[in-house]
Amino acid sequence: MRTIYGINPVTEAIRAGKNIDHVIVSAARNDKTAAAIMKAATDADIEVRRAPEEELRRLTKTDKHQGVAAVLAEEFRYSAFEDLIAAWKESGEQAFFLILDSIQDPQNLGSLVRTANAAGVHGVIIPKDRASEVTSTVVKTSAGATEVTPVARETNLTRAIERLKEEGVWVAAVEGGSSETVYSADLDRDIAIVIGSEGRGIRRLVKESCDFCVSIPMYGEIGSLNAAQAGAVALFEARRQRLKAK
Amino acid sequence: MRTIYGINPVTEAIRAGKNIDHVIVSAARNDKTAAAIMKAATDADIEVRRAPEEELRRLTKTDKHQGVAAVLAEEFRYSAFEDLIAAWKESGEQAFFLILDSIQDPQNLGSLVRTANAAGVHGVIIPKDRASEVTSTVVKTSAGATEVTPVARETNLTRAIERLKEEGVWVAAVEGGSSETVYSADLDRDIAIVIGSEGRGIRRLVKESCDFCVSIPMYGEIGSLNAAQAGAVALFEARRQRLKAK
Repeated sequence: MRTIYGINPVTEAIRAGKNIDHVIVSAARNDKTAAAIMKAATDADIEVRRAPEEELRRLTKTDKHQGVAAVLAEEFRYSAFEDLIAAWKESGEQAFFLILDSIQDPQNLGSLVRTANAAGVHGVIIPKDRASEVTSTVVKTSAGATEVTPVARETNLTRAIERLKEEGVWVAAVEGGSSETVYSADLDRDIAIVIGSEGRGIRRLVKESCDFCVSIPMYGEIGSLNAAQAGAVALFEARRQRLKAK
Repeated sequence: MRTIYGINPVTEAIRAGKNIDHVIVSAARNDKTAAAIMKAATDADIEVRRAPEEELRRLTKTDKHQGVAAVLAEEFRYSAFEDLIAAWKESGEQAFFLILDSIQDPQNLGSLVRTANAAGVHGVIIPKDRASEVTSTVVKTSAGATEVTPVARETNLTRAIERLKEEGVWVAAVEGGSSETVYSADLDRDIAIVIGSEGRGIRRLVKESCDFCVSIPMYGEIGSLNAAQAGAVALFEARRQRLKAK
């Protein structure tokens, strides 16, 4: 059992047909949004319970539950890495993956999965060790994107990168100081974008396994973007190049 | 007096010549980064004190101080809106402003100022009411960008927008659902980009005073980006169009 909370995450989980045991709505919420969630749950044969705010706070361990939570009958289910590859191939589209090398801040991870979903990736790949897992904070920050975007968790990122390269996917490390930029590089092909952690960037061995490095040009005094912003700029630049090409 | 903390904010404040009373470095930090900050402070005739971790925690009211803080002799100084316009004109560059309509989350505000600095804006304009001020959390999240990017705080955003339009600046509201997108719109001109708040978007009157609306195309199940990510995509797309034009 795990609990997710917030309007968007709960709405997405119902829509995605997740195995939800029951939905809890604060007794204090009698607005249209709450009514829409209760209707969606009922339509999907999911039990709805009303509860005092205090109970929601206790259950979600936060004040940011927005008066709605869902208790899922299963733990967060990571996707198998090979299933991400299979799903891409089945889509008939150009490959589009996001690889996160050791993002430790759950809010950054959530933001990145949300942005990756919005950019239309086939999946997100994160490492098993020394990185944030998909916690309920990640689900909330992702606005529910974790419930619909496949996330694979791999012990060895370098091996995953080699596997993608075998499949003809180009792997681009986003790294400050590279002379090639996200604008000059050709991202309009089968691609996986690698974003490093907040403090340390991409680990050396991971970077060495990438095909090329690209930077985001900086025009002020600050030397770098936060990981979540760098991911947004790189993912949407890749998306823009695809639009352009059509 | 106000306290800022974290490696980047303190480094930026020293570099920007802020009126710093003294710098405090944790007695537990004896690494190269700490040494570089102490040297920069000493070179700028700023007193350096060593203190136990616990004192830093008490002073900064957080555990995220990274062992460094600076006590500034003055409050955060907002720029006058007219000074932003004057600075732009003096630069001889195309105008580039970011207007934030009621961002309430300090972390989002900090991220947005950091991204705006990296994109090379002439300034950021925020409203006086119902919005986050520049707190020490904002300074930290901005990686010190608040110490070098002019931030103006206006009572009436609509009037500020009218003033920019008088100066020939085009004002673009970033808003989901607009048929014009950041990619199809011409952002390679004197421009101010308006980003709305996390929950509510841009207020009606503010939006009506803009010249046009642009959306960021969405390719997944999630209907929108977080304000900080939307700002990153829009600001860097404007920057890219300028690069392209040269």
